[in-house]
Amino acid sequence: MNLLKNKIEDEGVVLSGTVLKVDSFLNHQVDPELMMEIGKEFARRFKDLGITKVLTIESSGIAPGVMAALQLNVPLVFARKRKSLTLSEGVITSKVYSYTKQEENTISVSSKYIGENDRVLLVDDFLANGQAALGLIDLVKQAGANVAGIGIVIEKSFQDGGKLVRETGYRVESLAEIQSLENGKVTFKQEGARV
Amino acid sequence: MNLLKNKIEDEGVVLSGTVLKVDSFLNHQVDPELMMEIGKEFARRFKDLGITKVLTIESSGIAPGVMAALQLNVPLVFARKRKSLTLSEGVITSKVYSYTKQEENTISVSSKYIGENDRVLLVDDFLANGQAALGLIDLVKQAGANVAGIGIVIEKSFQDGGKLVRETGYRVESLAEIQSLENGKVTFKQEGARV
Repeated sequence: MNLLKNKIEDEGVVLSGTVLKVDSFLNHQVDPELMMEIGKEFARRFKDLGITKVLTIESSGIAPGVMAALQLNVPLVFARKRKSLTLSEGVITSKVYSYTKQEENTISVSSKYIGENDRVLLVDDFLANGQAALGLIDLVKQAGANVAGIGIVIEKSFQDGGKLVRETGYRVESLAEIQSLENGKVTFKQEGARV
Repeated sequence: MNLLKNKIEDEGVVLSGTVLKVDSFLNHQVDPELMMEIGKEFARRFKDLGITKVLTIESSGIAPGVMAALQLNVPLVFARKRKSLTLSEGVITSKVYSYTKQEENTISVSSKYIGENDRVLLVDDFLANGQAALGLIDLVKQAGANVAGIGIVIEKSFQDGGKLVRETGYRVESLAEIQSLENGKVTFKQEGARV
């Protein structure tokens, strides 16, 4: 998705060989027009799969997730990173380790909103170590629902997540795949290439 | 906004005389079409104020916030509830006490994304005790920017927040104003009435 890649090239800040900061349009400030285009692109790629829900994790997944849900004409559900006082009965949980934040979060979703008749599109901002995506897959399975596919805004293809998540057999679509952040520079993977 | 009021009547769960749960369309599951209509309504009410940014707080403010930003054709910024490892330099913070969660959060925003030339529309899901809105106002003031207005999805008019926030002199627009949750029933304030 060229619009996204151009944005990453123009505004992404390479903090190290593994960390890309995109706070100007995705993770802190959000570009609503870009989110809308991302939503349209996810809908285009997954439109024939009978999706009934989009599931993401707070907070950075919500903006691309709500746009994908809008375009697919289904509800969005956002998993919470810790239990809320007003979310108690029928809560499904999974543990997710964040390498970025070096902490374990319990992500949770109410069984009211993901059920056995659902075909769920998972959406997240980044795919790096794959822990968040695997946690979301686990939530969907526990709910007795089906994973229809996984839509990722930015995949860091040089990390393990893409391989781990694709090994589950689910279809993963990443709108920008980054091959390397070496030498302070973003290098995208060639379209269609699978490392 | 009747679409929203109807949704609250149909799906809102009154947990007590002060707590309304709207997890089916705003706080956990999100209705993207409703969020789009909410975004349009905020844009309609605030369109002539020269707004340059929409500012909200993660997580439940993001969906209505991104739709308002889309309609106003400006970026969204979401304040974080705790400091991130990759957000350090130039961080503006304010303390916000949550009565719902009974804890104090430090909300933060990068000074990169709210500056002295900005006219900021604050958007949040609920106005109850007003602490979140006052925290957002404080962030904008610290950044040297101007508050153009405050857009609230659901105001619990029987709590102090509306009065506290209106006393600051800023324009507050709430799309649904709830006068009472007594006897397990949602009673809306009459349009135009100010208690």
